[in-house]
Amino acid sequence: MGGRDRFSARLGRRDFLAATGGAFFVCALGERNFTVRTARDVQRVDAAAASLRRPASARRDRVDSLSFATPAPADGGRRREYWLVARPVRWQVTPRGYDEWHARRVPRVTFRALAYQAWSAGFARPLGPPRIPGPTLEAEVGDVIVVHFRNGAEQLRQALTVHPHGVRYNPEYDGAYLGEFTRAGGFVAPGEEFTYVWEATPDSVGVWPYHDHGPNHTLNTFRGLFGAIVVRERGAARPDREYALFLHNFPPQITGADTVLHCINGRAFAGNTPTLRARVGERVAIHVIGMDSNFHTFHIHGHRWRDSAGALVDCPTVGPNETITAAFTEDNPGRWLYHCHVFSHQDAGMAGWYLVDPR
Amino acid sequence: MGGRDRFSARLGRRDFLAATGGAFFVCALGERNFTVRTARDVQRVDAAAASLRRPASARRDRVDSLSFATPAPADGGRRREYWLVARPVRWQVTPRGYDEWHARRVPRVTFRALAYQAWSAGFARPLGPPRIPGPTLEAEVGDVIVVHFRNGAEQLRQALTVHPHGVRYNPEYDGAYLGEFTRAGGFVAPGEEFTYVWEATPDSVGVWPYHDHGPNHTLNTFRGLFGAIVVRERGAARPDREYALFLHNFPPQITGADTVLHCINGRAFAGNTPTLRARVGERVAIHVIGMDSNFHTFHIHGHRWRDSAGALVDCPTVGPNETITAAFTEDNPGRWLYHCHVFSHQDAGMAGWYLVDPR
Amino acid sequence: MGGRDRFSARLGRRDFLAATGGAFFVCALGERNFTVRTARDVQRVDAAAASLRRPASARRDRVDSLSFATPAPADGGRRREYWLVARPVRWQVTPRGYDEWHARRVPRVTFRALAYQAWSAGFARPLGPPRIPGPTLEAEVGDVIVVHFRNGAEQLRQALTVHPHGVRYNPEYDGAYLGEFTRAGGFVAPGEEFTYVWEATPDSVGVWPYHDHGPNHTLNTFRGLFGAIVVRERGAARPDREYALFLHNFPPQITGADTVLHCINGRAFAGNTPTLRARVGERVAIHVIGMDSNFHTFHIHGHRWRDSAGALVDCPTVGPNETITAAFTEDNPGRWLYHCHVFSHQDAGMAGWYLVDPR
Ligand SMILES: [Cu+2]
Ligand SMILES: [Cu+2]
Ligand SMILES: [Cu+2]
Repeated sequence: MGGRDRFSARLGRRDFLAATGGAFFVCALGERNFTVRTARDVQRVDAAAASLRRPASARRDRVDSLSFATPAPADGGRRREYWLVARPVRWQVTPRGYDEWHARRVPRVTFRALAYQAWSAGFARPLGPPRIPGPTLEAEVGDVIVVHFRNGAEQLRQALTVHPHGVRYNPEYDGAYLGEFTRAGGFVAPGEEFTYVWEATPDSVGVWPYHDHGPNHTLNTFRGLFGAIVVRERGAARPDREYALFLHNFPPQITGADTVLHCINGRAFAGNTPTLRARVGERVAIHVIGMDSNFHTFHIHGHRWRDSAGALVDCPTVGPNETITAAFTEDNPGRWLYHCHVFSHQDAGMAGWYLVDPR
Repeated sequence: MGGRDRFSARLGRRDFLAATGGAFFVCALGERNFTVRTARDVQRVDAAAASLRRPASARRDRVDSLSFATPAPADGGRRREYWLVARPVRWQVTPRGYDEWHARRVPRVTFRALAYQAWSAGFARPLGPPRIPGPTLEAEVGDVIVVHFRNGAEQLRQALTVHPHGVRYNPEYDGAYLGEFTRAGGFVAPGEEFTYVWEATPDSVGVWPYHDHGPNHTLNTFRGLFGAIVVRERGAARPDREYALFLHNFPPQITGADTVLHCINGRAFAGNTPTLRARVGERVAIHVIGMDSNFHTFHIHGHRWRDSAGALVDCPTVGPNETITAAFTEDNPGRWLYHCHVFSHQDAGMAGWYLVDPR
Repeated sequence: MGGRDRFSARLGRRDFLAATGGAFFVCALGERNFTVRTARDVQRVDAAAASLRRPASARRDRVDSLSFATPAPADGGRRREYWLVARPVRWQVTPRGYDEWHARRVPRVTFRALAYQAWSAGFARPLGPPRIPGPTLEAEVGDVIVVHFRNGAEQLRQALTVHPHGVRYNPEYDGAYLGEFTRAGGFVAPGEEFTYVWEATPDSVGVWPYHDHGPNHTLNTFRGLFGAIVVRERGAARPDREYALFLHNFPPQITGADTVLHCINGRAFAGNTPTLRARVGERVAIHVIGMDSNFHTFHIHGHRWRDSAGALVDCPTVGPNETITAAFTEDNPGRWLYHCHVFSHQDAGMAGWYLVDPR
């Protein structure tokens, strides 16, 4: 199992539809709405995306002629600069080849994913290997987040972007391909760079996703182009332990695996997904973000917490690009399973370990 | 692409199941549970609905013998009267034939839908063409909403109704077909009229859907028989801009299109779906209501707001017949995309423009 | 229609995939991830589960060597003891053979389900027939819930467990199969007993599910192994009427029916599902718990209530193993329909009656 060094899985898999129950996803691109059932369909979508030219900046409505100033930090705020490179990475979904929850071997699935990689100032050098999710962007209220972005996936021959949730930005920094209304940050061609400037306003406090929103963003987000933004009140303390978990899937069309793999942060099955740790007495915050077309619920054995309404929960719903936070003071040592409670997701990889040490 | 002047799409489409991934929906009607895969299945469901006779009003339980007074307005309240006619309409799902987000042509899909059309007092004359959704019904606490309803879809040969959410009503005005327990308002035969009287009570404050709940209500709701109810506190000011957006789909079985069209207010793809407007400084309320069997999340670029728990969100979940409201004071001019964040919905039409002028 | 006295439906159904739209579910077990499409697949999963041996208790991490004291009630708290036997039951999904909402006959579907049956102290005698859901476990803050569990499904030849949500427990009483990290309560072999001890802490207040979390828990939960836990503040009064409704489905693979049956508490279609009652003036609490892989919304005609954020709702979302509570003082007499508002669920059985008497 596993792909070669290209972006779509090998073609001609027998009984593919049988294995996936006819599962497919849809990509709107160029002149077509692609129904993506096979690796060949992925190639077609990529070819359509590669043929797109930079759109003109149409002025059909008076709002299209507005111009915008680049925001600066508020009094006392800072510039938080990040250098991100979108690039392909040979990604192991199941590096251990083992599912520790069910005590069984699972296939080692490797494919050509896309990731936002953190680089040092001025794109001097990578800060570690590409990872899924990309680096967490942090700010306090009053700061501006400056993301220097380079589309380093030249082989993909497609425009890419960074689109944030939660923070404030003007249309220049939306990072979204909008057809003829696209502004500069919505179409960063292969090899190009663009600098996004986003404001951490008082109503930006929270944890949010960022993700590709270029012309092929459904496919490229599914490939791994996403990460988290954390905005805190000015001077607010970090929790003692803070984790961001993305619930998503890698479909067979892009991995070449026999089935969809339901993942947490790019990995499937306990022992491959993140193993979280904490100690009794610590303040823990686990941010859970949906990043596919499915709805999920998030459960941690032995734990419960208050949701934003103050209600006690242990298995809340989290939808696509929605965030829920499980925050509590740890009081229950041991080895705990965390998982999405959609049975067909948990059994296809969406589970992991949370290890709690005594005080 | 596109239907003829009948309620189901033309038959015999090649590769229909391939195109829809075997998608189907279920209708419970007459002696059968219909699995609706094709336009012919739609015809079968319609035929079964047309053969239903008005049910007897069975009295199996003591509650079935209760009688109910027609409610009157509370002190200071008013009667808010509406005249609604359910009628067929040749409906354009993609009138522009263009998807402005993805800068591409899309097929012009037209089919025979159903809509609640607003008429003037006494059914004197229509107040404009039939639209999806139907007219928004407004009231303040203490009012009664009086809906004079006529089933004007004689060609459909089926009973129709109006069933409201949120407001208070006694069983006579439930507007739901309940088999042998159906009361008058639950079976309005073709050509018949019925007057519903609903109370706007203090716990009715909010925005709610109304929809067909007759014997064939799954199919006829999917065809477009739905609208919004807005109940405000007495004397409460309207927001400066207020929109109601229904997230729903038109399945290929009723449109004859090759694929499902994921719609907002009966239209698919930006430029066809509602283009919303506001000005900086205005108080904006966008009410989003699920009206199909799917779950959705609702995202507006460049914006965030507080949910009913006070939490900052920009992409909350909205389920079937659930309402969420995005309410904020506008502060961010420009052209913004709004969309469901389920990737397979947004790429199949569930997106639109929100244009914000500077102060 | 209907099964024989075995746990999977009879094989060789024609057009099974046609009838279910290729529906399937996934079970992770032994060396495989089973895609369960047919009754034969169910047999394969059961065979794999029957071949599992009790796992060793691996110590890979320091937390695996922790030992735990059995909790005792807090000052003033009590031991709430229950005796539960998991056992097969020939279960009627549609005992009336009739759907009262749609006034039509429906097939009588009977199959070999699994249920938690309540027994008297010391497993002396059963307290009534096995039911789906199992008995409701009640406690107040400060109590411990003691569940004496017997795996009485010897014919199934599989380990079973009881895993609770909401309450506090140490890893010994998690009731979850965790592969090599399984502790005693996570693998109760056929004929064996295990006693779980769970704490009702201040942050356990609410209504929660319990369910099987043994090695084959997806399949065995789908078969009916679930129930409710209610934790109240010390001395808190019960509502006048309190109901727990589980929204779930029985797939054709285990029932032998032609289609999936969307159920409430093990029954499908109004007249078979629970008929709830109340009287005007009574305080009513209806707890709704998701227990399958689907998301649902819950609607009661003629009623609305405040959610945990204080917002007025009449159709909230409820996800897998999530709980929502519809609580209100009854003020609206008559016969009311309650149902999930996912159209394809309500039309396939997920609806029932709520009968309200006048004061
Ligand atoms: Cu999930
Ligand atoms: Cu959607
Ligand atoms: Cu449902």
